[in-house]
Order: sequence, then structure tokens, then C-alpha cells
Amino acid sequence: MKITYSPIGYFRTQYTDIKGMPIQPIGADTVEGIIEVLPEFQNGLQDLEGFSHVFVLYHLHQIEGYDLLVKPFLDTKRHGIFATRSPKRPNPLGLSVMRLKGVSGSSVFLEGIDVLDQTPVIDIKPYVADFDRCDADRFGWFEGKSEHAVHHRSDERFARKPAAGEE
Amino acid sequence: MKITYSPIGYFRTQYTDIKGMPIQPIGADTVEGIIEVLPEFQNGLQDLEGFSHVFVLYHLHQIEGYDLLVKPFLDTKRHGIFATRSPKRPNPLGLSVMRLKGVSGSSVFLEGIDVLDQTPVIDIKPYVADFDRCDADRFGWFEGKSEHAVHHRSDERFARKPAAGEE
Repeated sequence: MKITYSPIGYFRTQYTDIKGMPIQPIGADTVEGIIEVLPEFQNGLQDLEGFSHVFVLYHLHQIEGYDLLVKPFLDTKRHGIFATRSPKRPNPLGLSVMRLKGVSGSSVFLEGIDVLDQTPVIDIKPYVADFDRCDADRFGWFEGKSEHAVHHRSDERFARKPAAGEE
Repeated sequence: MKITYSPIGYFRTQYTDIKGMPIQPIGADTVEGIIEVLPEFQNGLQDLEGFSHVFVLYHLHQIEGYDLLVKPFLDTKRHGIFATRSPKRPNPLGLSVMRLKGVSGSSVFLEGIDVLDQTPVIDIKPYVADFDRCDADRFGWFEGKSEHAVHHRSDERFARKPAAGEE
């Protein structure tokens, strides 16, 4: 079975290279970017600007192949890919919560950008506290590590072409 | 440009019909279900059980076509599809935060299930408070409505075949 999607638009961000990017929106708190929605979908943005935050789902277009066990940026041990937020996933689908600054025509202005320029956007969903906030209290191997994502920057380990000598 | 994904597994839930389903996990707080991950991806589940909650991304396989303006279950007015959580989206990709009860072999046991049986799963990601919790404070048209999702059940408006006379 194959699932086929088409981009509803594309990110315009300051990141043209995976290396040096924030690894999560909390490391990109004040970084602004835009989703340019394709004209045929613009009407779907109606009333979006009433929300302070959105989920953005996007295709990690620079990722090729996947690993079931990965050593994430924040740890020195390997973990199952589904226990990480690493991009080299069986389906390279990215998910971020971003602050919505405004909507103008087909442009969606966002803050907290941790994605590459030209990344294809698959969906935008409003963040609704009653649905999306949860009483999560166990964070596995992330515990004591996830706050480091504020300052941690991506290296080349998930880039399309691994550097010579890298595994 | 086409984006092609393959299921990493399938949901096993008690819902075989869209009608009567909870419309969000908060309406399905104690409803249990299972993701049966395909054997070739089982190793990717390693260390997942350290997390209390996960994001599950799934393909809304019973949805055909989309509307850019929809009248959601919780409102009487139309809104842009990207300002709603309605399933009839340009890319019918579902997102839910679910409580993780455990992992055994290739089975992921979950609570807070609001999806149809046999729904194809695209990705599982750990919920990490430092990344995913946000200070959202504006919820657009949902304000004063989203708590009703606890008791609201789906009707047939987003089912594959609209009933006669429905728009």
C-alpha cells in the first residue's frame, strides 16, 4: 500500500543547509519564516489567524533512506527511531509546533522555525489546548537532555551525503 | 511533486464505522487500541516505552476528496480547512496525542484512541514536553467549543459516501 500526498505549499526560511540548523523549535524561538501556500489552497487558511500556535507537518525532503536505530543529536546511545525525533525515519515526516504571527493572502508567518528552506508542507493544523496539551510525565531517554536542544545545533549526520568516514 | 509514504503498521481499534466515533482523543480518554507495527519496523520501537505519550500520525484512509471550507462537528459556521481538525483535508493526514500503555514485540498499546480500525500508521514520535508543550493562548473559533469534544461523537458528514440530500 502506498500513501501519496502533494505539497500544499513550501517553507521559506533562512536555512539552506542542514548543518547549523536548530534541531527543534525551542532552539529557534525567535527565528521567523513563512509558509507560502499554493494559490489553489489559499481559501483553506480562512480563520487560521485566530490561533496563536499551529502544528506544521512537512516532508523532510533532504532525507534519504532510514535507520531503525539512531544516535540522536542529544544522546550518545542508540535508540529506536520511533523513540526519537530524528529525521531519518521510514516515512520522513516532520512535525513542529510553531507560533503563528499572522496570515496575509497565501503567506503564513511563523516563529520557531527549525526546517530547511523549500521544505514541502503537507498540512497545517491549529493547536488546540484541549486536544493537544497532555499530562505527559515520562520522557524516556530525553529526560535531562531535551532542554539542551535550546542551544544544540544540527551537524551533518542526517544530511543527504554523509561526510567521508562517517558511518 | 508527489510525496509517497508506506504504512509502518495499522491500528486495531473498536471503531469500524466513522459514525459514533469520538472526534478527538479527549473524547476517548479510556478507549484502548493497538498499533501493530509491521515486522520489518519492529526494531524501531526500542526504548519507546519510556515515554508516557506519543504523537501518532496516520492516513485517514476512509476520506475521499477535500473541502477548503468546512463546517466542523463543533461549530455551525464554515472555516478554512487549515483552521480546523476536520479530516477532509487536501492531504488526509491525522495527528493525535495518545497515552502509551506499553510496547510488546511489534504491538504498541495506546489509550485515547479516536481512529478507525485498520487505519494505516505513518509515524510514531515520542511526545517531549520541552519541544511540544507551548504557551498557546489563542484558539480562534475553538474557544468555548473545544471542551465539548469530550462528549461529541462523529456523524457521517466526513464518511466516504455522503447520505442523500447532504451537501
